[in-house]
Amino acid sequence: MTFNGDGRNVRVGVIGAGNIGADHATTLAREVAGAEVVAVFDPDPARAAAVAEATQARTSARAEELISAPDVDSVLVASPDETHPAMVLACIAAGKPVLCEKPLATSLAGATEVMEAEIAHGARLVRLGFMRRYDPGYRAAKEVIAAGELGQVVVLHCVHRGKASAPHYTTAMLLSNSAVHEFDVTRWLLGEEIVAASVVAGRSSPYAPVGLHDPLIVLLETSSGVVVDIELFCNCRYGYDVRCEVVGTDGTICCGEPASTFRTATGWRRSSIADDWRARFHEAYRAELQDWVESLRRDEQRGPTAWDGYAATAVAEACVAAAADGARAKVELGAPPSLYR
Amino acid sequence: MTFNGDGRNVRVGVIGAGNIGADHATTLAREVAGAEVVAVFDPDPARAAAVAEATQARTSARAEELISAPDVDSVLVASPDETHPAMVLACIAAGKPVLCEKPLATSLAGATEVMEAEIAHGARLVRLGFMRRYDPGYRAAKEVIAAGELGQVVVLHCVHRGKASAPHYTTAMLLSNSAVHEFDVTRWLLGEEIVAASVVAGRSSPYAPVGLHDPLIVLLETSSGVVVDIELFCNCRYGYDVRCEVVGTDGTICCGEPASTFRTATGWRRSSIADDWRARFHEAYRAELQDWVESLRRDEQRGPTAWDGYAATAVAEACVAAAADGARAKVELGAPPSLYR
Amino acid sequence: MTFNGDGRNVRVGVIGAGNIGADHATTLAREVAGAEVVAVFDPDPARAAAVAEATQARTSARAEELISAPDVDSVLVASPDETHPAMVLACIAAGKPVLCEKPLATSLAGATEVMEAEIAHGARLVRLGFMRRYDPGYRAAKEVIAAGELGQVVVLHCVHRGKASAPHYTTAMLLSNSAVHEFDVTRWLLGEEIVAASVVAGRSSPYAPVGLHDPLIVLLETSSGVVVDIELFCNCRYGYDVRCEVVGTDGTICCGEPASTFRTATGWRRSSIADDWRARFHEAYRAELQDWVESLRRDEQRGPTAWDGYAATAVAEACVAAAADGARAKVELGAPPSLYR
Amino acid sequence: MTFNGDGRNVRVGVIGAGNIGADHATTLAREVAGAEVVAVFDPDPARAAAVAEATQARTSARAEELISAPDVDSVLVASPDETHPAMVLACIAAGKPVLCEKPLATSLAGATEVMEAEIAHGARLVRLGFMRRYDPGYRAAKEVIAAGELGQVVVLHCVHRGKASAPHYTTAMLLSNSAVHEFDVTRWLLGEEIVAASVVAGRSSPYAPVGLHDPLIVLLETSSGVVVDIELFCNCRYGYDVRCEVVGTDGTICCGEPASTFRTATGWRRSSIADDWRARFHEAYRAELQDWVESLRRDEQRGPTAWDGYAATAVAEACVAAAADGARAKVELGAPPSLYR
Repeated sequence: MTFNGDGRNVRVGVIGAGNIGADHATTLAREVAGAEVVAVFDPDPARAAAVAEATQARTSARAEELISAPDVDSVLVASPDETHPAMVLACIAAGKPVLCEKPLATSLAGATEVMEAEIAHGARLVRLGFMRRYDPGYRAAKEVIAAGELGQVVVLHCVHRGKASAPHYTTAMLLSNSAVHEFDVTRWLLGEEIVAASVVAGRSSPYAPVGLHDPLIVLLETSSGVVVDIELFCNCRYGYDVRCEVVGTDGTICCGEPASTFRTATGWRRSSIADDWRARFHEAYRAELQDWVESLRRDEQRGPTAWDGYAATAVAEACVAAAADGARAKVELGAPPSLYR
Repeated sequence: MTFNGDGRNVRVGVIGAGNIGADHATTLAREVAGAEVVAVFDPDPARAAAVAEATQARTSARAEELISAPDVDSVLVASPDETHPAMVLACIAAGKPVLCEKPLATSLAGATEVMEAEIAHGARLVRLGFMRRYDPGYRAAKEVIAAGELGQVVVLHCVHRGKASAPHYTTAMLLSNSAVHEFDVTRWLLGEEIVAASVVAGRSSPYAPVGLHDPLIVLLETSSGVVVDIELFCNCRYGYDVRCEVVGTDGTICCGEPASTFRTATGWRRSSIADDWRARFHEAYRAELQDWVESLRRDEQRGPTAWDGYAATAVAEACVAAAADGARAKVELGAPPSLYR
Repeated sequence: MTFNGDGRNVRVGVIGAGNIGADHATTLAREVAGAEVVAVFDPDPARAAAVAEATQARTSARAEELISAPDVDSVLVASPDETHPAMVLACIAAGKPVLCEKPLATSLAGATEVMEAEIAHGARLVRLGFMRRYDPGYRAAKEVIAAGELGQVVVLHCVHRGKASAPHYTTAMLLSNSAVHEFDVTRWLLGEEIVAASVVAGRSSPYAPVGLHDPLIVLLETSSGVVVDIELFCNCRYGYDVRCEVVGTDGTICCGEPASTFRTATGWRRSSIADDWRARFHEAYRAELQDWVESLRRDEQRGPTAWDGYAATAVAEACVAAAADGARAKVELGAPPSLYR
Repeated sequence: MTFNGDGRNVRVGVIGAGNIGADHATTLAREVAGAEVVAVFDPDPARAAAVAEATQARTSARAEELISAPDVDSVLVASPDETHPAMVLACIAAGKPVLCEKPLATSLAGATEVMEAEIAHGARLVRLGFMRRYDPGYRAAKEVIAAGELGQVVVLHCVHRGKASAPHYTTAMLLSNSAVHEFDVTRWLLGEEIVAASVVAGRSSPYAPVGLHDPLIVLLETSSGVVVDIELFCNCRYGYDVRCEVVGTDGTICCGEPASTFRTATGWRRSSIADDWRARFHEAYRAELQDWVESLRRDEQRGPTAWDGYAATAVAEACVAAAADGARAKVELGAPPSLYR
């Protein structure tokens, strides 16, 4: 597929008009070159209508209708996690490129089904919304590692904190929905697979809703022996704070939220911390969407794949098992199918 | 003028294909929603052709031809400083919106001519490229000041450093081309005019080319009595480092280059400093261009005006006089014409 | 014992004239009020003589002679780790106050013997050299925790890095000699005991000597459920870097090496990292020694005790076991003897 | 004079038991090796008694009595600024070493008288309390400059802020009592003299007491052409904030208050700012006193001299003149007398 020949915009249909869907849609419409939002679907018609109006798009009555619409060149899936596989499968069936918000699936079975469908289709259509790969800090870390400037990486320290989780958030979601970012970051930064996972649950914060053990410490081991510790804490109350320190045999690199200002008053000097993922990673989301649109216009393949989504889901599933029985769980991925090499 | 009705892109003609013109053109083509570069002019045809190819535009043989082309909706002027007034006057004559890189003019006479032409035209067409107004740090500073969180502003400290100036850079250019950013930042942050300027020239760096006294210290006073000191140092060798500290009676805010990573090795922990204005302010330039395009599509008036360009040039001219005779020079602007209120 | 009555200096005998013994001796002689070094012992007579000369003290032929000398009011033990119990036991037998460098012992048996001797003596004579309790950053963290400003502590992240270990350094020493600081910090900051320990050994740095697995990740759990992760990395090559982040349900506090300057050059802005423990913690050592001397002069009991030394050794022993078999090791301390409550 | 032969403590008499006198006295008694406070004088007997008790010293009925007491080896002068010359002259007459808090005098005449008396005495007895020379940040800056790592210094930016001035504080005191630190720092860091001074007074803070124009901007020029700008702001309300940035042709160094911890809560990450000079410079004061005592015990001459005090007072006097008439004032020191070379 090429959009390049006639300089035409890529026409995107957006499925899911919740927080992140609305955010993606307006970013596509207002800040991404070469894109236009043409259709929006959400089970809540009011929500769909609001986003459609803000982006000068129409609403679709059903997801299937949106996916099959002739003027929808590509699809952005930002519906609830558990619906991701069905939506992406429909896109593959329609032969349309799709950017699926993470996670690809909440179960390995779901992820497998998507991956197999794409393999059967014979060409990559699916990109995963691992937007940290587009954050300047993480990109700098990857470059420094790749250039060998840290020597061999030996340890990764990750912190993933949010102000307050949704009321229904569960321990399993903390792993499959939140930690999945760190699983992808680990694989992407190091260029190798995660082979084992453990979960340590100490005291839980009284601010966590029932059913959610928060914080958790996750320990990962990679194929070459890098140890990764991850603090997941989605009810830390003070802000959205995501950081990563890569420790190598010859030096370290640490990325976090850049501070654009410092203020002083009454005894302190401070920088601000983002309120949520939107404030922290807006630039990364914009860059992700721009790169997706550009890759479609140039008919180029790049970005996180269904295999990346599958691998992250596999680690999440291992973590859920490890959290349940307190033991170290192995992750066995095997080699990536040829479509993803 | 409205581009909004039919959702059509704003078609931009770019005059000047040097460093900043090329940068603007590719940003418009690749990262700005709703814009497209249709024509490029540069006296150097090879340079024009390269930018035109990168942005899928055509080249124009002459600036006037570009400005009058029917498919050029608006013009971006990034030609050498001394040509700015002529280019902008031609755009006004053609009734086309124009984003003019700073400075508006290298002399007050030039700036006056442009402003008078726009007033005669009877509507604002000119925007000035004071992109710092779109930098997150400067924006945060403005918000904090406007909210009264610093009390009354009493002092502004500015630092403006670059690695190495162009060989032909002169002391006058240091004031009219570089410091003009600080003049605008001062006026914009404080919402008041600069009324006097002094220049202190101490020891000059041996790395400065002949004809350039570098660094200089500029002292400004505003109408309410805020004192502004500015260090201009365009041959500091280590990087492009632009910072500003606003001191109020109830606190301070400081903005500079955000650090997205920290590295450790051999005895230090460090963050990187941008190599040039491009690395430091790319996001601000993108936001500036996006806002310009959006304002054109919505037929809204906003952003720095010809009056802002005129005022900055007036301060620059006062500084040049102050540098020449070592005395404090007054700046007398009078009230802004009604078009700019 | 009181030294206060006549304003006389506390006369200290120093056992061990290696790096840390020499450092303590000169600090006592040159920077501590109310102290004087009177005797120095080291099996290497040249080393002893050099320190004695620098501090205007005499050398002792044997440790026992130093301990029993009538003009030695108190003893500072900075001999090799494995000799600590014997030295401290001799001090207790002589009824003399002793400041023993950490660890109290390299085995739980040794630590127990010391503790029991002190209990039999019936009064506290032993202080342990856990100098981080005197570091401004750690002290601030303790105050903030104690004031409840973080809510309940849930996680502690510790990093303990050094440039290069001694050639003979072993994995057991990494735990009993280095990590023992973090064991004490954890107990002291939280005011509770460590109940379990695990050790994760991933890839080891090629710069680590044979017999040392470096880095290690240690995981501790405290009685109230706080999870502590510790990165131990004594061959990180870039400097001595010790940090700690305390995560509470209502906020966090992080302490590390304060940066007294920032430099810019060739593309970076940087602060320096200490070369070794001396540069990083000199102030803490001085404050520790001053506080010890002052407590002796005022006949007051404070500072880390033999029980603190015993507890840290117990955790170290559990870690050694955990490292050996890869399993989680419990730490069972029981209640502190009444002398230490 | 030597105190070294018999290892005896230096016995210090303290004149002035106000904030800084009390602070120095307790630091000498509790944290300085080889010193003891033996006598305290203050016109307010209660104040004197409190400091005497805290330091186990006696009170003296009159300053002259203290200075001439046979058991007073040396004198620390921390009385009000305007009494400094008389106190120091009495010490010189008694042939006793004296550490005089800055400034040496509030008028050039007073400073001259002291200097001439010391020259007539024929040996240096006077040290000035320019404690920043003992601050780690300033020391690092001096080392880096001296090593040529910055190339040639071209600009110095200084900030000197305090929470709230004393009610009686005047504009002249802002220059002679506060800015005198920056005058000394400039001379000491650069190793050259200040040759001219200007003062810019913009808007004054409503929090400044009547008679005090606060903030002020002072501009200095040194013999080699370095330009120094100093913001003096003693009613900034948020804390005691003293910083300095040295700009060289090959790089910069910046020193300020080191942050020993960072906290996060409710949207920010912050470090604390010292409440007053005591918190900010306690270590520098301790090091200054220790170095003074050590130099006395070793009979060595070092540290800031009466000439340094005279030079700083000369600059202060020039600034007061410049502030009065708004013109640039020259500072003409001549060569230092041979005693100070």
